[in-house]
Amino acid sequence: MEINKVNKAVKLAANHHQGKITSIYFTACGGSLVDFYVSKYFLEAEAKTITTGWYNSSEFVNVPPAKLGEDSIVFICSHSGNTPETVEAAKIAQEKGAFTIGLTFNKNANLLNYSNAKIVYEWGNEEEVVNNPMAITLDATVKLLQNFENYQYAVDFDDGLKKIDTVISRVIRQVQPRTKKFAQVYQNETMFYVLGSGPSFGHAYGFSICSLMEMQWLNSSAIHSGEYFHGPFEVTDKNLPYILLKSLGRTRVLDERAERFLAKYAQKVEVVDAKELGLDLIDDKVSEYFSPILFYTVLCEYRAKLAAVHDHSLDVRRYMGKVEY
Amino acid sequence: MEINKVNKAVKLAANHHQGKITSIYFTACGGSLVDFYVSKYFLEAEAKTITTGWYNSSEFVNVPPAKLGEDSIVFICSHSGNTPETVEAAKIAQEKGAFTIGLTFNKNANLLNYSNAKIVYEWGNEEEVVNNPMAITLDATVKLLQNFENYQYAVDFDDGLKKIDTVISRVIRQVQPRTKKFAQVYQNETMFYVLGSGPSFGHAYGFSICSLMEMQWLNSSAIHSGEYFHGPFEVTDKNLPYILLKSLGRTRVLDERAERFLAKYAQKVEVVDAKELGLDLIDDKVSEYFSPILFYTVLCEYRAKLAAVHDHSLDVRRYMGKVEY
Repeated sequence: MEINKVNKAVKLAANHHQGKITSIYFTACGGSLVDFYVSKYFLEAEAKTITTGWYNSSEFVNVPPAKLGEDSIVFICSHSGNTPETVEAAKIAQEKGAFTIGLTFNKNANLLNYSNAKIVYEWGNEEEVVNNPMAITLDATVKLLQNFENYQYAVDFDDGLKKIDTVISRVIRQVQPRTKKFAQVYQNETMFYVLGSGPSFGHAYGFSICSLMEMQWLNSSAIHSGEYFHGPFEVTDKNLPYILLKSLGRTRVLDERAERFLAKYAQKVEVVDAKELGLDLIDDKVSEYFSPILFYTVLCEYRAKLAAVHDHSLDVRRYMGKVEY
Repeated sequence: MEINKVNKAVKLAANHHQGKITSIYFTACGGSLVDFYVSKYFLEAEAKTITTGWYNSSEFVNVPPAKLGEDSIVFICSHSGNTPETVEAAKIAQEKGAFTIGLTFNKNANLLNYSNAKIVYEWGNEEEVVNNPMAITLDATVKLLQNFENYQYAVDFDDGLKKIDTVISRVIRQVQPRTKKFAQVYQNETMFYVLGSGPSFGHAYGFSICSLMEMQWLNSSAIHSGEYFHGPFEVTDKNLPYILLKSLGRTRVLDERAERFLAKYAQKVEVVDAKELGLDLIDDKVSEYFSPILFYTVLCEYRAKLAAVHDHSLDVRRYMGKVEY
């Protein structure tokens, strides 16, 4: 359990800032940036004074926000811990006087040299999601908002964290038949649209760029469920496959609207529904923020089955870490 | 010229707020949301105290930011002026006490009923970009930042606005041969990746969802040039077409990195370079914010040539405005 590491980081940040901050930023690349999306979204939705921002590291390095300074906290994540632009982002954040919280899997990471608080996370056991950087960061962000603004549902969130592993381990068993069937039916498709909304849009993007493009070399495009009707839906037809992440919470109506349209005009549609998968065990006041945590785990099962049917290991790369770039 | 309308809207907002605001939000759908991206980006990069946010209208309606209130200004745009979720967003913003600036082409728009300041823009002459909602909003945003925070480069920005139409009309002639050639070479492609960074990432997204998906029924995916190396580049090969928007300014290095990689591992690459197209006529301190304005016009030429070679009018829709959704 990473709870102690989270509490320690939050305490360090709170002590450092003596009761007042103006901004909490998130910067990383690819899958690590995806993991931050829900925390950025949570602050936009819930924070009454604190500003937030969500940046690819190289953009953060070249155009740091003007508000970045001594009253800022910056979360920075690199799984390997040595992604050059992410290490540079941490360095720049510290130079501007911000308090940095570095997350990595690598205890010897260069990133940790520029991290005021260090969170070295465990990895590998997908049934313990509270150990993944997405859940860790969200937990820390909720606690920071409780500390600095008395966020009122921190207790409900904490209760959700206690329940999420139970939901997840049940879900992994539950989705075995459907993920196998999905891989069978869609094994020859070369292009997938992935739709999502609210806190889960980050994982629509993440499944698209990491699981499909990076790990399976499939073409993909992530579309926000609300944006779908303002351009992207014109390509919809019966031959094009769609994966729709149907969240719990306030933006579920957006996903439902997309689902109704797809039911009428598309034929290859896979709906991953957080409610049907049991996420409503968690209190309504906070459950929407757990949707992407659930989706991450479920989508790992989808991609594993695709990898098996394609005989294309999730670990194979042709460029990443193999050529210069 | 819309300058007077912009000045009037800014003056109204400044008077309303008596010298202090905490946030400027942007909400719209599809192409109108795309037009707002550069203004959101400008505030993230330059504003020292003012918070910003950029929302699809239906997300804004269902999850309005907690910071939205009497110290907020909200820009809202609907070309037709009657997009239901956008009108609803304006209504909600007003209910929360915010000052709303509504932009539309339709002087009888329902949106105007919920707009404290009303900007009815002209449309049709692509050589006068200062009349399009992207340039109007950016101009207003720069003036608001000058008003509330004494933004130091407002004069340089104003000078850029005076020059941009000259750059644009020269560029339209300049790109005629290359856009025709592009359409010839790529007429049978069914999927395009569009890369961009910084203030121009919004237009990578916009060209993808509006011009390619909506207007030409082509598959497409917009990828941030900095994110490209953290997943998406694994699909790159000699058969896949890429359009790279190479901006001026601080994130140009990101686009250059993508360009170097594509030159090595792809073959179907169209680079649209703001510098080569003469945008460096505008002062370096602000030219990056004009990149998307240039790209919009140039990409209109690309899509027109695609439409001609496909014999698929840019105005044809199969769902939008034709079926219920």
